[in-house]
Amino acid sequence: AIARGKPVVTANKEALAKHWPEIMARARRRGVPVGFEATVGGGMPVVRAMQRHCSGDEIESFAGILNGTCNFILTRMKEYIVRHLEDREIQKRSLPLEEALAQAQRRGYAEPDPSNDLNGSDTKYKVAILANLAFDTFVDPADIYCEGIWEESQRIVPSDLYFLHHPRYLAGKFALKLVGVAERRYGRPTLRVHPALVEEAGPLGDLAAVSENFNGIVIRGRRLQTQFIKGLGAGPQPTTISVASDVREIATGMLRARAAGASAPGEAALADLPAAGTRRGAALGDVRRVPTRGYLRSFSPDVKGIYARKLEILARHKVNVQSVVNVREFVYGRDRVMPDYIEIDATPDGAVRDVLRAFRRLKNVRDPMYFRILEL
Amino acid sequence: AIARGKPVVTANKEALAKHWPEIMARARRRGVPVGFEATVGGGMPVVRAMQRHCSGDEIESFAGILNGTCNFILTRMKEYIVRHLEDREIQKRSLPLEEALAQAQRRGYAEPDPSNDLNGSDTKYKVAILANLAFDTFVDPADIYCEGIWEESQRIVPSDLYFLHHPRYLAGKFALKLVGVAERRYGRPTLRVHPALVEEAGPLGDLAAVSENFNGIVIRGRRLQTQFIKGLGAGPQPTTISVASDVREIATGMLRARAAGASAPGEAALADLPAAGTRRGAALGDVRRVPTRGYLRSFSPDVKGIYARKLEILARHKVNVQSVVNVREFVYGRDRVMPDYIEIDATPDGAVRDVLRAFRRLKNVRDPMYFRILEL
Repeated sequence: AIARGKPVVTANKEALAKHWPEIMARARRRGVPVGFEATVGGGMPVVRAMQRHCSGDEIESFAGILNGTCNFILTRMKEYIVRHLEDREIQKRSLPLEEALAQAQRRGYAEPDPSNDLNGSDTKYKVAILANLAFDTFVDPADIYCEGIWEESQRIVPSDLYFLHHPRYLAGKFALKLVGVAERRYGRPTLRVHPALVEEAGPLGDLAAVSENFNGIVIRGRRLQTQFIKGLGAGPQPTTISVASDVREIATGMLRARAAGASAPGEAALADLPAAGTRRGAALGDVRRVPTRGYLRSFSPDVKGIYARKLEILARHKVNVQSVVNVREFVYGRDRVMPDYIEIDATPDGAVRDVLRAFRRLKNVRDPMYFRILEL
Repeated sequence: AIARGKPVVTANKEALAKHWPEIMARARRRGVPVGFEATVGGGMPVVRAMQRHCSGDEIESFAGILNGTCNFILTRMKEYIVRHLEDREIQKRSLPLEEALAQAQRRGYAEPDPSNDLNGSDTKYKVAILANLAFDTFVDPADIYCEGIWEESQRIVPSDLYFLHHPRYLAGKFALKLVGVAERRYGRPTLRVHPALVEEAGPLGDLAAVSENFNGIVIRGRRLQTQFIKGLGAGPQPTTISVASDVREIATGMLRARAAGASAPGEAALADLPAAGTRRGAALGDVRRVPTRGYLRSFSPDVKGIYARKLEILARHKVNVQSVVNVREFVYGRDRVMPDYIEIDATPDGAVRDVLRAFRRLKNVRDPMYFRILEL
């Protein structure tokens, strides 16, 4: 369409994120406007907020819940656990991710193939698009560190929600969310997508409160400090409206330009087309160096020596342990593995990932996963 | 400036709200763009959200905390009370509105003359501007029903916060905020500004959580359902940035139009200039007919018969009473009046105002005030 000089309005975040420099350069050359409000957070005006409002400010970071499908699933799993906290049969009657997903599909909040939503790719493309605007660059989405919530070795299970919400354990201090995070660090955009614990009563409490199929984003600027935007995520309605709004804006601009006697109507309607930047992805900050803290979860049978081996690995990687908690209410499978949660102090993210890798090599230890506490 | 064909960027909400039709008609005639992001919620992109994003939707209502000064003051008064809940001398040591205001002035969050902030006028102008965009009309701000928080007979006092937050009474169920509310009702925009109780755990919980000098707004659309935006309110920084962002947007538009060979560069840059509408204010819905519920506060000495007289007036106006509560911890003045809070069922707002008028005529009863529970 661009080659034929036609304005483009798109909701295809994958194509836009991957081919950003080509699309923007071509559009600029041909004087063709490109609207893409619908690619991120259909029901909230986040693209325009980034594009226009923050143009007078310097954006330092943002963190968003950008996938309505994941958020709906995590909300259902949490609600189920909270409703059944005192049920002695909680494990048998718990709501696994697969069932929450089926609910989402019945309501039309999840695609028949939900892989891109659940493995974080959808969030990754959105982070790339927003980072392009926020940091005036081109980020190759393939360079963004990304963890999801349902890969075989990286799947949220009911005991996670139980541990987070039961008064005996973390008592609802944190909400579990799939987040996309962007920060200026080491002079570079540093980007990551992963499940995270968001403190309910902390400075990111607005984000912790984003539930159901809503999206939400916190944007930190040097001068405007904190902005927060929240709106409907998953669903065809928001997308349609964002597309319609882009179309209308471009059409209005073109009509006016024609009325004003512009020779190339498209040119005048170019809605703040971002710089094309380089054709190769910008160099990103190293997420392995970012200090994070949180909880390491893994499953193991209640046998002698297994905790000692885990703690020994942690010590070897210089990770400080705060506490180790067994959740005895949940015992899985024939070999009766039990989840435990190890709370760690702030550590470079790469060291924690090395620990996870070492855990995976341990006999008897299964599905280690890291729940980072979100801090901005 | 418009008469000379110069683009206009303004942060003057009073002038814009009062002279909307003239300004828009003149700008349209001369092909001059008008930027006014800075007039409402400097630190959050609410004008653009209303103007562009929601252009594909039909807006049903909005409710906003739009004055950072009031919000800062109410936050301070609440925090003080919450910190001293169990202090037996709480009344003597409480933080009156005047002192919270002085704190706001020291921090630069309040003007030397704060009348327009505290009597609700500032919020009223902002509601008018947002309603013009949301309902595509011209609202004369003088027609908006408006109550503030510091007029002599309408002043928030420490016992109000005590009643709202002490576990013996409402136990923090509600946050007290000065809100601007707009709804389509009876086929017309129905607009009001007043202090309101916003339920912390209810559907407007996002709004209840807006504290300090932040602004926040909930926008309800027919298709996009609920959006929420929050950002810095009071202070020179947000205003400056919004103005700069408007200037930049207009300049970009004009440069592009010129590049495209437009004969009247301004024309092409007209950023979605809203319709001028009629020159006379639109007919608004009657706020007196809107059903509201909440708490009536008044002060009276602990003498026989005074409650009976109040209840008799309520009955005469067909207002159902749910409960009557004395707050004995607070006794004011030489005649030792004590605040009581009468909880009422949903009643047409006009009837409650008639009750307040009748209360004011009662001997021994002082400063009756109505705390409406915000519902959208």
